This record gives sequence, C-alpha cells and structure tokens, in this order.
Amino acid sequence: MPPTAVTHRHLLDVAGCSWSELTAFLGATEAARAILRSPTGRSDALNGVQVTTLFYEASTRTRISFENAAKALGANVNSVAVASSSVGKGESLVDTVKTLRALGSNVIVLRHERAGAPWLAARVFDGSVLNAGDGWHAHPTQALLDLSVLVRHIGAKDGTLNGRRVAIIGDLLHSRVARSNLHTLRAAGAEVRLAGPAPLTRGFAELAEWSDGVTLCSSLAEALEGADAVMALRIQHERLEGGEVSSLESYRTAWGLTEARIASTAARECVVLHPGPMNEGVEIDPDVADGPRSLIFEQVAEGIPVRMAALWRTLRGDEPLAGAVRIKGSR
Amino acid sequence: MPPTAVTHRHLLDVAGCSWSELTAFLGATEAARAILRSPTGRSDALNGVQVTTLFYEASTRTRISFENAAKALGANVNSVAVASSSVGKGESLVDTVKTLRALGSNVIVLRHERAGAPWLAARVFDGSVLNAGDGWHAHPTQALLDLSVLVRHIGAKDGTLNGRRVAIIGDLLHSRVARSNLHTLRAAGAEVRLAGPAPLTRGFAELAEWSDGVTLCSSLAEALEGADAVMALRIQHERLEGGEVSSLESYRTAWGLTEARIASTAARECVVLHPGPMNEGVEIDPDVADGPRSLIFEQVAEGIPVRMAALWRTLRGDEPLAGAVRIKGSR
Amino acid sequence: MPPTAVTHRHLLDVAGCSWSELTAFLGATEAARAILRSPTGRSDALNGVQVTTLFYEASTRTRISFENAAKALGANVNSVAVASSSVGKGESLVDTVKTLRALGSNVIVLRHERAGAPWLAARVFDGSVLNAGDGWHAHPTQALLDLSVLVRHIGAKDGTLNGRRVAIIGDLLHSRVARSNLHTLRAAGAEVRLAGPAPLTRGFAELAEWSDGVTLCSSLAEALEGADAVMALRIQHERLEGGEVSSLESYRTAWGLTEARIASTAARECVVLHPGPMNEGVEIDPDVADGPRSLIFEQVAEGIPVRMAALWRTLRGDEPLAGAVRIKGSR
Repeated sequence: MPPTAVTHRHLLDVAGCSWSELTAFLGATEAARAILRSPTGRSDALNGVQVTTLFYEASTRTRISFENAAKALGANVNSVAVASSSVGKGESLVDTVKTLRALGSNVIVLRHERAGAPWLAARVFDGSVLNAGDGWHAHPTQALLDLSVLVRHIGAKDGTLNGRRVAIIGDLLHSRVARSNLHTLRAAGAEVRLAGPAPLTRGFAELAEWSDGVTLCSSLAEALEGADAVMALRIQHERLEGGEVSSLESYRTAWGLTEARIASTAARECVVLHPGPMNEGVEIDPDVADGPRSLIFEQVAEGIPVRMAALWRTLRGDEPLAGAVRIKGSR
Repeated sequence: MPPTAVTHRHLLDVAGCSWSELTAFLGATEAARAILRSPTGRSDALNGVQVTTLFYEASTRTRISFENAAKALGANVNSVAVASSSVGKGESLVDTVKTLRALGSNVIVLRHERAGAPWLAARVFDGSVLNAGDGWHAHPTQALLDLSVLVRHIGAKDGTLNGRRVAIIGDLLHSRVARSNLHTLRAAGAEVRLAGPAPLTRGFAELAEWSDGVTLCSSLAEALEGADAVMALRIQHERLEGGEVSSLESYRTAWGLTEARIASTAARECVVLHPGPMNEGVEIDPDVADGPRSLIFEQVAEGIPVRMAALWRTLRGDEPLAGAVRIKGSR
Repeated sequence: MPPTAVTHRHLLDVAGCSWSELTAFLGATEAARAILRSPTGRSDALNGVQVTTLFYEASTRTRISFENAAKALGANVNSVAVASSSVGKGESLVDTVKTLRALGSNVIVLRHERAGAPWLAARVFDGSVLNAGDGWHAHPTQALLDLSVLVRHIGAKDGTLNGRRVAIIGDLLHSRVARSNLHTLRAAGAEVRLAGPAPLTRGFAELAEWSDGVTLCSSLAEALEGADAVMALRIQHERLEGGEVSSLESYRTAWGLTEARIASTAARECVVLHPGPMNEGVEIDPDVADGPRSLIFEQVAEGIPVRMAALWRTLRGDEPLAGAVRIKGSR
C-alpha cells in the first residue's frame, strides 16, 4: 500500500481524498488569497523553510507558481532543473533527494517523467514532498486549483459540485491532469463525462464502468450535453508521431472545442478550462480560449494561493494560515 | 501604426523618442546611480512589483543587468529561459505572456528572436513590457546606456552630442544595437557614420540618403575620420556560414578596430564602444578593447542604473525616483 | 609562479596550505555552523556583497551549496550557467569575468572544465575568485569539507589527523577531488593510501615516491588495510568509452567498496566518504553508501558552513565571523 495520498507531511496524490480534506484545502486557499491581497502580498508564515523545486521536465507555470507561492509565505527557494544539474550525470533520484536534504531543503516540489517518482522520494526524504506532476499519473495541485475555480464558478450553494456535470475532452490516456481531476471532481459530487479518440481513451471504458458518476462518451457532442464545465486536454505532438492521432486537422474536426459546439449542447453558462500550455486551433479554438466562458488564465492565477495552501498544509497541517506581513511606518 | 515607442507603460523602442524624453531618462539614470552609490545600494521604490525576464535567446549581461536593476529597486524577480520552460512545448508568445500575467507579473522584460515580438506582447499584457532585444530590430536599453556613457565622455556643454561624430562599424544589417543607436544618437544631435562589408550594410545606403546626419562610408578609414567615438559591432559566426564574410582574417583586415587605425584618422580622444560579447582579434583588437579609449566595461556597468530608470519610468512615469533604503541602527 | 593558493582575496587551491591556515578555516566553519543553528539561520555579515556562481559544468550540490552559503551570510546571489548564457556565443572567460565585475559582482564562484581557469579569472578580477572545481586540477572547498568531516569523526585529540590512515580509491587521474584532498590530508598529518586501475592512476606512483606519507597500492585490499577512512571516487562513463575501464562489472569486482571488503581489512570504525554524485553498485555498494559507516550526506551538509567560511575568509580574512540575525519581536 502506498503512503496516504494526502497527509500532513506530503502531497503526493488527491486519489482517496475525502470531501472534508478537500474543503480544508479550499479553506487554506482562501486564507492564502487574503495574504496575496494584503498591501505587502506576503507573509512570514514559512520563514526559515527551504523549498526546492526539482523539475525533471520543463515547466513555466507550475514551477513559477510554486516558487512565488513559497516566497509569498516567506520561504527560501532553490531551483534545480535537470538539464543544468548533475542529475544529468546519472545520479539516482534517491541520492538527489538525500543530497537536497543535506543541503537544507525542508520541502521538495518534484516533477518527474516517471509515475510514482514522488512516492520514492517521499520514502527517503524526512521533509515534505509535493508532487508537481509524475508521468501520466497524477498532478494533485492542478486538480486542486481546477476544483477551486470550479467551485467558485459553478458550485452549488453548499460549496460542492453536487448536480454539476463536467466534461473532460481529449488525450485522457497520457493525462495526469485528467486522472487527478477525476478524483477531486467525484469527491466534490460532480458527474464526469469523458471523451476522446479511441487510442487515447484506452482503459477509461473499464474505469467508467467501475466508477459511479463517470461516463465514457463516444462523441464530443454526447460529452458536452448539459455540461456546466468542459476541460480540454493538450494534444501532444508525440501523438502524431505515434499514429494515435492522424492529423491535427482531423483531431480538431472531431474533438476541438469551438463556441458553436459548446453553445449547441452544453449548459448555457458552461465554462471552459485547459491546464495549459494550449495548442490553440487544435484542441481549443482561440475564440473559446479568449472568450467569456474561458477560465483558463484564472486557473493559472489560482495556482498561487492553492500552492501556498498545499505548502502550508503539508508543513503545518490544520493549523490556521494567517498573518500577512504588516507594512512598517508610513509608506 | 504601432503603439508609441516609449510610453509610460512600455519601453518597446527608442525610435521616435524626442531629446526631451531621452533627457528625462538620463535624469532618472542619475537618480538610480545615487541609489546604487548609497550604503545599502538599494531602494524600496518598486516593492511589491513582480518583474519577469522572459528570454527566448541566451544572454548574460542584459538578463543579469535587468535582474539586478529590478532587485536594487526592491522588486521581486522571476526568470524564464526558453530552453528550460514549457515554451519549448510550443506555447504561443501571447499565451505565455497571459500566463505570466496570471502568475502575478507586473513587468515583462522580453528578448525574442523575432522583430516585433514585444509589440505583440504589449498588446495582450496589461502590465509593462520592456524590449530587451527583438530580432534585428531594436534594443532600446542598450541604446540608452550607450547614450548615457557617450554624453558623459564626449558630451557637449549643453548635455547633447551636438557637433560630435560617432562611427558604427560592422554588421549593421543584423544589428538591433545599431538600429536603436541610430535613433538616440541622431536625437542627441550627433553625426553618425556607418561602415561595414557590403553584404552586411544592405539597405543602409537608402537609410543614409533619407536621414539627415547619417552617412554610409565605403571604408573604415572614411568612417573613422574625425570620429569622437567608434562603436564596433559583433561579427557572428553565422555570417561566415552564410558567405557574407569570407573569413575572420579578411574581416579583421578590412574592418577590425586597431589602435593604429583609430590613432591615424579619428579624433585624438576618440573613445571606443562595443555592445558585447566581443570577438577579440576580429572586430576589435584586444589592446583596443582593454586600452585607455575603451568604455566597453563602463557600458556594462551603465546597464544597471539605465535599466533601473527604464523600469521606474515605465511604471511611474515622470514621478521622481528617490530614496535609497536607510541603514537601520549602528551597523 | 601562480598567485598564492589561499589568500585573503581568493580561494584558488589548497595546495601549499599550512595546517594553521586549515585550522583557521575550520574555526570559521564552526562560527558559520553557529549561524546556521540560530533561530533565523542567517546573518547579515555579507550584506551588500554580490556573489555570482559562474558554472561551465553542471552541478547541483556545489552550486546550491555555495548559493545557500552566500544567502545565509546575507549576500545577493546571481547564477550564470553556461548553457543559458551568451558564454555559449564564444565570449572569452576573461571578458565574462570583466562583465560580471561591471555588473557589480564582488565574488565569482567559478567551475570550469579547464585546469587553471580560476587563476586566469583571478588575474583580471578585482574581487574574489573561489575555485569550485577546475578540470582535473583542484576542488578546494570539497577538500576543506572532507577535512572538516574527517577531523570530527576520526580526528586525534589535538584536532589533527596525525596517525590516521585515509584511503582514496578509484579514478585518481581525472579527480580534482583526490588532488585537493591529498594536500589537506597530508597537511593534517594523515597517511594517505591510493589505489585504482593502472590507466587511472598514471603519474601517482611518481607522486607517491616524492611525497612523504603517500603510498600507491596495487590492490584495494592493500589500500584498505588499517584505514580509518576510505573515500571512493566517481567512475565516469567516459572511462568506459575511453577503454580505461573495460566494464562497470569488472570495475566493481576489482575496486568497488563493499562492506565485506571494508570489514575484512580496514579499521573497525572505518568511515566512508564519496564526493558525489555516486554510481551506486559500481564504485560503492548501496549498503555501504547508506550504511552506518557512511558520511556521504554529512559531507554534503558540511558544504554549507565550509563555503560560508570560504566566502567570509576570502572577503574578510581573519576577522571573526559572528552574529546571526536576531529575531525581532515575539514571533
């Protein structure tokens, strides 16, 4: 059995998270937002804490989001990117993690191309490990920020997503974002509809059969029917090379999100999400990405308070997060 | 029509800058220098401002210069280099800029291999964009720092470059530094002489015809005649591959700056500039680069107060820049 | 004659260091450790000092260690990695160093693939140069941290390594770590035994002949005999390609550190060091690397106070390092 997904020490996964755990995250996110909105935009809540981002895959938004979140809580940040580090010399993940510990890291934010890598790291690290994306497997802070945005925009009065329908469209097979969202959306009470090209939804028919409230649809129109929110997934160029998608044009024709398609079958106020980076004109049309339904850049912005909450809760548990830094004197 | 080159919101270009605008920059540069010379070397003038350097081309001096300038004004700095970011995954510049905005950036310092990219960024960014070099087109802060150095060393009594002659030698065609300098030097009243190999000065004959006070010369000697300052441009290795230059040795023979050549025709006190990085022994001899005429490392140092001024003026306009951080207590 | 290895201005080498100089380093390291153990973990001892790490080779532990050391003393840090800088455009080391000086650097921490590069840098830099590894030549701060760890664990009552035996095993030829350790270990009074494959110990027979207290052994068993400490060196993959090692398996058979081998001939309490990154299962077995003899991650941790001491002493000489930052108020 793997270590518990969300504990007060690590944030490895959102699978198995109860709604009450997710509610606690959303509460801490609100507290974090209050700090960001204060005149200084900062807190000294994690002064003296050393956070290291260890990224084995390129990233702009997740890395900067975690780094700014850590700084907003007063932590120190080190960045290790694989290309420019001795990791390239073949040091094992385990030794790298132990090395970072010896260098004073209290928290490792890990992105790795292999599923499960954060569990391995957590086993040898006596600080906190936060999973910033592992292979096709999980991306817990992305799911948490998507949940936070969705609760705000389409949430029920009780703060859940009960009675709401969310469609996830595209390359489910390779998507850690989809896998993590499935858990949080279901825990929040949403009905989830999945759709995508057959080679990219392998295994999801079985998953849908086993899972209450999850359906694998055979067309975009079916998935969008009555949807309160739709999330487009990135289609990667490797899928063309692998033959799983015959052309970007054919992909767009069958699965691309256009305003016409959303307007014809989804709920009137249906909102649109995308984890980024987008291939505009392929999985999503520019006028949808930039249109009034789009929450795409709100998702990016949500990353900062959500990751502040994630850092805080892995280190301090249920202790309330409070206290922006006061401005001294008259400035 | 493009957005105004220098506004209080962006710094995209120096083309079209009036002398009074340039004077205002030089004044803010002086104020920035006073902060750097104070015991702390810092100000909290831009506390709470988030500056992101977004570099699609490698750079040491411009990137560090902007980062240190931002820190000296109390701003927070994020760095995004293309090679280690998801920009490599093909995200559009527009989406990257919107993402950085959502991550809290107030200022984007952009270097991009395509001319015009900063204008595109400025169109979708509600903060400030500073052009740190776009293709062959413009490099406004380089021209401003060159101007600042030249006014100090060869300036007329009224603080202009009236009656001064400046030669720019080498690969004009591919030089954003030359293009931006042409504008600032002319606005300051200097006469500009250009020279370089024919394939690398294409179009500059026409430009010289249309422009008052600009001459395209056919030899180095002609360009250097009576010059108060000479600026050597970097000759890039791609020029050899493209056949525009037959060999580094032949380039040096025809266009390399040597002390003998400067001494024989330029003004006695002629100063020497180079935007760096240099190919010593090709476009400039080591004894010139390191000799008493050289202002090359003074140019580098000038980058910090000039970029502090650029950050300040794009964000705060004509508001005076003042106030180094005081040292507390007795230390 | 090269500049003195350790001066108050540079830290280029430990060759020629007297025991009293090394003692002064160890004393400053203790003072640095007191700062790290204080509630804030920081000092403002080097406030206003600009430290630049200039790395022409990849590194995680040395770079982060220096950066955290500089920050713990209140200095500002810039990082320049070759891959993402205009150094790639072919600028000379000399011009890069002058450029960093002009950008305000007071200290350059240099790693370079060519032996001697830090001396070249020191010749043109009016601040301090710290050698963070130059080719096969020297890695002074690694030797200092190894010394600090060894004195703590196997030191004699007088704080020296008199009467202690230290074995260094593996690729001596390409090891700057071995070369620097030879000097500090001998200065501390230890007897040093060397061993490794013949093609990788070229020249060390002569060195051992000339040097008091240094022996080149013909087998691992001979080198380990009675050893109080053994240091395994990294075997690089290039050695396979170069034919100097026929296979990793054969290397492990002849020279790999295993518990059985250590237990059978070394001193009972023999400790194990490795400069990292390790090839576990090749030059060292995982159960040794992770076992009770291993000081490997203590070495990494030691890097921070040792590099604080190195920064302090190059800038401030024998002035005592003191004064952690006080925590204000009641938090």
